[in-house]
Amino acid sequence: MCEANAYLVEAEQGETLFMESVDTIEPFENGLKLTDIFGRQKFIKASIANVSLLHHRIMLNTPEKG
Amino acid sequence: MCEANAYLVEAEQGETLFMESVDTIEPFENGLKLTDIFGRQKFIKASIANVSLLHHRIMLNTPEKG
Repeated sequence: MCEANAYLVEAEQGETLFMESVDTIEPFENGLKLTDIFGRQKFIKASIANVSLLHHRIMLNTPEKG
Repeated sequence: MCEANAYLVEAEQGETLFMESVDTIEPFENGLKLTDIFGRQKFIKASIANVSLLHHRIMLNTPEKG
């Protein structure tokens, strides 16, 4: 099974798990729509920072700067 | 094994396979650095258009508009 977990990386909080078992990531409005392998969807105003598939990790970051 | 193939999507050519068995994708200069599961690297001035992990597909597109 090939899927990955998406983590949101923020300056203060560091890394937090946003969604597990992500299947698809598509652009949506000002951010991304993530769909997991069960068909559940989440939206987030963020972009893909980097991807490491063998480690099942997708890192997201928000465009807002403090 | 979790990896995916990266395809470049262009208006004229449509979809062309850019790299197989992609492990990591990281931002690099004006584009992306892709590393495959064997450690080989490729650079491309493109961004991630969308991702479909269960189908092992990463779609890239270039920011240039004709």
